[in-house]
Amino acid sequence: MSAHKKAVVLLSGGLDSATVLAIARERGFELHALSFDYGQRHRIELKAARRVAEAFGAQHSVISFDLRQFGGSALTADIDVPKNRPHDQMSEGIPVTYVPARNTIFLSFALGVAETIGSLDIFVGVNALDYSGYPDCRPEFIKAFESLANVATKAGVEGQKFTIHAPLIQMTKAQIIRDGRRLGVDYSITTSCYDPSVDALACGRCDSCQLRRKGFAEAGVPDPTQYQ
Amino acid sequence: MSAHKKAVVLLSGGLDSATVLAIARERGFELHALSFDYGQRHRIELKAARRVAEAFGAQHSVISFDLRQFGGSALTADIDVPKNRPHDQMSEGIPVTYVPARNTIFLSFALGVAETIGSLDIFVGVNALDYSGYPDCRPEFIKAFESLANVATKAGVEGQKFTIHAPLIQMTKAQIIRDGRRLGVDYSITTSCYDPSVDALACGRCDSCQLRRKGFAEAGVPDPTQYQ
Repeated sequence: MSAHKKAVVLLSGGLDSATVLAIARERGFELHALSFDYGQRHRIELKAARRVAEAFGAQHSVISFDLRQFGGSALTADIDVPKNRPHDQMSEGIPVTYVPARNTIFLSFALGVAETIGSLDIFVGVNALDYSGYPDCRPEFIKAFESLANVATKAGVEGQKFTIHAPLIQMTKAQIIRDGRRLGVDYSITTSCYDPSVDALACGRCDSCQLRRKGFAEAGVPDPTQYQ
Repeated sequence: MSAHKKAVVLLSGGLDSATVLAIARERGFELHALSFDYGQRHRIELKAARRVAEAFGAQHSVISFDLRQFGGSALTADIDVPKNRPHDQMSEGIPVTYVPARNTIFLSFALGVAETIGSLDIFVGVNALDYSGYPDCRPEFIKAFESLANVATKAGVEGQKFTIHAPLIQMTKAQIIRDGRRLGVDYSITTSCYDPSVDALACGRCDSCQLRRKGFAEAGVPDPTQYQ
């Protein structure tokens, strides 16, 4: 047994998951970061994920599959990413950037990895406050997945208990940024844009860019993002 | 809207899932079969899956990812598949052929496909009776996944209800075979072996082959399987 308990941390390369990685480290876990190459148009985030994992000395794996074969989302199909949506519209309804069952798929792989490496702790950076109205970012989703994990696995059957940690779920973007700064997150190596340019500059206008910008402004922290 | 409701049916190419496809057709669903190329040593089952989907006129998609990068199972890592285990030992404990979180991952993809094509019905051929002791083949697992589906998705949030159909869950292998024969399943095009030879002959000795053999014998039906 290693001295530290292991945690599987979903790492997109964005602001939220980088902060979650820092939080898991602060809580004393040995870090196993997990990213997904699923045909997302903002695939550049995988480079950011690698940089973030390196910065925290985390082990890092990338699982590849192609959600484009089903489409159904502006992030994986040929549908325009909405730009300049007013903030108060973002939590009304579920936008076209929603990828069907994405977090369910991501957490399922995390569960498989956790079971394989002997971890009972999975961290995910979902947020139900400054978010885009995705069903799989809500507390009831996290709770339902935790229940599932405990009946789906050998560890669960044998009486061990999985915890799905969603430490950001009730935090504002500004709170997340302040917490991350305290924990040493370098946000200049993260990326949040859904529709970056070929040279990796953020569009500044998609929901994700807008939430990020607003977060830095409200936190009173300079925004290190390079916008187009 | 099409005349028929759509169902997503997990199809491995084995005896159970072929029967489930027949059951879903009998219940009047438009069939969308889904298979997985996950680095399984018995990858030959994908050819069987294609034959079975064709035989039922089902649409068929294959999703690829590589569970070998994590290992942890005799089906995906360099661990010997157990042979000639007595039947009464198969339901004691969880064997090395268990693939961590496999059915959770499969059902998560099925949920994404269902949501994309506008289906609320997912069929899976898990069996809790003549089975190998896998935690993710039990009724409580199916129930937990159904609960998850209804909070994880846009359809669920909007008040629609997903059903995870596991019609074989309390059937013996012999009952499954008799039911499948009634529904026109040609079992000669299915494959169940965990460790087939390069020319696709079944080993006859792994848990899966033994359960299949016993099922045909108990059903009083000639076994069309080609063994080594």
